[in-house]
Amino acid sequence: MFSVTVRDHMMIAHSLRGEAFGRAQRLHGATYVVDATFRRPALDANNTVVDIGRAAGELHAVLTELSYRNLDDDAELAGVNTTTEALAQVVADRLAGRIRAGAMGDGALEMAAITVTLHESHIAWASYERAL
Amino acid sequence: MFSVTVRDHMMIAHSLRGEAFGRAQRLHGATYVVDATFRRPALDANNTVVDIGRAAGELHAVLTELSYRNLDDDAELAGVNTTTEALAQVVADRLAGRIRAGAMGDGALEMAAITVTLHESHIAWASYERAL
Amino acid sequence: MFSVTVRDHMMIAHSLRGEAFGRAQRLHGATYVVDATFRRPALDANNTVVDIGRAAGELHAVLTELSYRNLDDDAELAGVNTTTEALAQVVADRLAGRIRAGAMGDGALEMAAITVTLHESHIAWASYERAL
Amino acid sequence: MFSVTVRDHMMIAHSLRGEAFGRAQRLHGATYVVDATFRRPALDANNTVVDIGRAAGELHAVLTELSYRNLDDDAELAGVNTTTEALAQVVADRLAGRIRAGAMGDGALEMAAITVTLHESHIAWASYERAL
Amino acid sequence: MFSVTVRDHMMIAHSLRGEAFGRAQRLHGATYVVDATFRRPALDANNTVVDIGRAAGELHAVLTELSYRNLDDDAELAGVNTTTEALAQVVADRLAGRIRAGAMGDGALEMAAITVTLHESHIAWASYERAL
Amino acid sequence: MFSVTVRDHMMIAHSLRGEAFGRAQRLHGATYVVDATFRRPALDANNTVVDIGRAAGELHAVLTELSYRNLDDDAELAGVNTTTEALAQVVADRLAGRIRAGAMGDGALEMAAITVTLHESHIAWASYERAL
Repeated sequence: MFSVTVRDHMMIAHSLRGEAFGRAQRLHGATYVVDATFRRPALDANNTVVDIGRAAGELHAVLTELSYRNLDDDAELAGVNTTTEALAQVVADRLAGRIRAGAMGDGALEMAAITVTLHESHIAWASYERAL
Repeated sequence: MFSVTVRDHMMIAHSLRGEAFGRAQRLHGATYVVDATFRRPALDANNTVVDIGRAAGELHAVLTELSYRNLDDDAELAGVNTTTEALAQVVADRLAGRIRAGAMGDGALEMAAITVTLHESHIAWASYERAL
Repeated sequence: MFSVTVRDHMMIAHSLRGEAFGRAQRLHGATYVVDATFRRPALDANNTVVDIGRAAGELHAVLTELSYRNLDDDAELAGVNTTTEALAQVVADRLAGRIRAGAMGDGALEMAAITVTLHESHIAWASYERAL
Repeated sequence: MFSVTVRDHMMIAHSLRGEAFGRAQRLHGATYVVDATFRRPALDANNTVVDIGRAAGELHAVLTELSYRNLDDDAELAGVNTTTEALAQVVADRLAGRIRAGAMGDGALEMAAITVTLHESHIAWASYERAL
Repeated sequence: MFSVTVRDHMMIAHSLRGEAFGRAQRLHGATYVVDATFRRPALDANNTVVDIGRAAGELHAVLTELSYRNLDDDAELAGVNTTTEALAQVVADRLAGRIRAGAMGDGALEMAAITVTLHESHIAWASYERAL
Repeated sequence: MFSVTVRDHMMIAHSLRGEAFGRAQRLHGATYVVDATFRRPALDANNTVVDIGRAAGELHAVLTELSYRNLDDDAELAGVNTTTEALAQVVADRLAGRIRAGAMGDGALEMAAITVTLHESHIAWASYERAL
C-alpha cells in the first residue's frame, strides 16, 4: 500500500458543549496543523498516489472554508460539537466529496482511503480514517 | 475509525541483557517521549473518542509508576528485558487495565484498540498495538 | 552563558485590528506552543539556571490566565492588538514580574534575561526577549 | 503487534517525467529523511523486533547506494519515474531483500511487514508498506 | 527585541567543490527547509515586526528563484561553492535587498537584522545573520 | 555571523543531588538529543564554517565518552551535579578542547563560539554558549 501526506493548517475559534470539557466550554480557539493522507494500493501512470499539487490545493481549499472563523457561527456546523475528532471527520468527508467530484483527477478515484489528522498542540492530536 | 493521541514522557535508568545490545548492556538510561493512541469506530455523545483530560491523566499515572527509577530494581519488571518494545507493551497493558477498571469512564470501554509509541531518540522509536 | 527552556501551550480566541491582517480581522483562534527561555551567566549552587519545576509551574500559571479565553474580552488586554509578537511580550513581562516577586526563588533574581517564543503554526512563530 | 522504526536520510538529484510535475520536471534535488518501520507480532528472545543496530546499519547501506547521486543516471533506476512514492518502494524492497538474505539475522525472517516513509519537506511525505 | 520567523522550503540540485566534501562533490541535491527571522527593537503601529503575509510572500519569491534548479547552472551563482552556509547568505542578502527596495513596506525598513537558517536534514543545519 | 549545527544523542543514567530535584534525586536516566552549533564571522576557503563531517565526528566522539554510562560512577565527573545545564557545559568544553587541539583542522581555530543544547524531553532543554 502506498500513501502520500500533505500538511497545512487552520486557525479557528469555537466552544465545546458538555461538562466534560471544563474550561474548554468557554469560547477559545486553536491552530490545527492538518495532515491529509491519501492511500492507494498501486501507483498511477506518473508513479504517484495523487498529483501532490492538486492534493495540497484541495486540502487548502477545504481548510480555507473553516479557517479564520468562529465555528460556533458556521451554519454548516450547526449542532456539531466541534471537537478535534469531529473536525477531522469534517475535513476528511469534504476531501472525499471533492475527490468523488473529480477535483483531483480521474486517477484519484482509485484511492482506497484517506486519513486526516488534526494536531491541536504539541501534546495532543486526533485522526479520522475513512474509505473512499 | 477515529483516534486520539496524547503525549507525555518518562526518564528511567536500566540495563539490557544479551550480547546483541553491546554497550547498552551497561547501566544507562533514556527519556522516552510516550504517545498513547486510543481508537474507536464511532464517537461518544460528546463527539470524542475519550475524555482527553482523563486519558492524559491515566497516561501520566502509568508513567509516574515507571519514571525516575532504575528499572533493573523494579520488582514488577523482574525478569523483563526492558527494551523499548517491551516497555511499550508494559505501558499499553497498564493503560488497558485502567480502562477496563473504568478509570476513563464507561464510554472508554467501547474503544477498539490502543497503540503506545516510545520515542527513545530523534532516530529510533518503538510501538505496541493491542485490542481492548 | 547558560539557558534553560520549558515548553507549554495555550489555546485562545481573538481578532486582530488593522487592514493588514485581512481575514484575521475576524474572530478566530490559535494554539500557541510557548517556549520560555531563562538565561544566566553562571549556574547556582544546584548547578541549575533555575529550578525547572518552578519555572514550568510559573509558565503554566501565566498561560492559564490567558488560555481558554476570548482575548477580545480580557480586561487586562483592553486596547492591545493581540498579535503573536505582542502576546510573547505579555507572557515574558508577566514571567518577569513573577520572578521579581520571588516566585522562582532568590536565585532566580540572578537571571540575566528571558525569551518567550510563541509558535502559532508549523510555519510561523514570534519571540520577545528582555532583560531581567 | 510490535514495531521498531529507525530514521536516516539521503540527498539526491533527479528530475520527474510528466506534465503533472510542472517545474519538478527540471533537474532538482531532495533530502529525504527516511523512516523504516519493522513489524512483528511477537518479540524475539531478546525482547526486540529486530537488533536495532543491524536494522539501522542495513537502512544506512541501502541509502548509501542512492545518496549523493543524480538518480537520472542510476542504471538500476533506468526507466523509473523516481517520485517520492516510487523511491519509498525501492528502499522497502531493497531492505526486504537484505532481510531475506539474512542480513538482519534469522529472527528478522519472522517480521511481518515493513513500512518506509520518505519525508521530502516539512509539508509532504510518502510511504510504502509491504509484507515480508 | 522582537522577532518573527516564517518557514518555507526549496528543492535544488548541486555539487560541491573541494576534497573536503567527499561524495558531496558529485551532483546530488537537497531539500532546504528555510526559516527567515526578522528582528526589530520595537513593534510597528499594528503591533507587528512585519506584515507576516508580506514576509512569507517575499521569502517564497526568493526561494522560487532558486528552487527546482541545478544550482551548478545558475548564472547568478557562478563561481559560488553553494554550501548550506553560503546559500543561507544568498537567501538573507536577497531578502535584505527586497526589504531595502520597499517590498515589505516602509515599516520593514526599521528592522534591525535578519537570520536565515537552512535545514538540510534532521541532523544538520546552517544559519547566516546580518544587520539591515 | 555564520553558524553550522550538527545533531547527535547520548543515553545516560545519573542521579541529582539537592532537595530541589525531588524524585530526580533517585537513580534515573535520560536521552539527551544534543545540538552543537559552531559560529564564525566569515567562511573558510571551502565556503564552510567547519568541515561538517569532522564536526559531526568530534561531537560523536565526545558523546561516546559519556553515553551508555551511569554518570554517578564517571571519575571525570566526580563531584559534578550532572544537571542538563552542567552537561551542556561538559560537552561544549570538551568540543572546545578538541578544536584547540586541531581535531577539526586549522580553519576551525577561527571559530568564534560554540553553543551546545541538550534536549532532555519534548518540553525541556538547556544550552551553554562559550567563546573559543
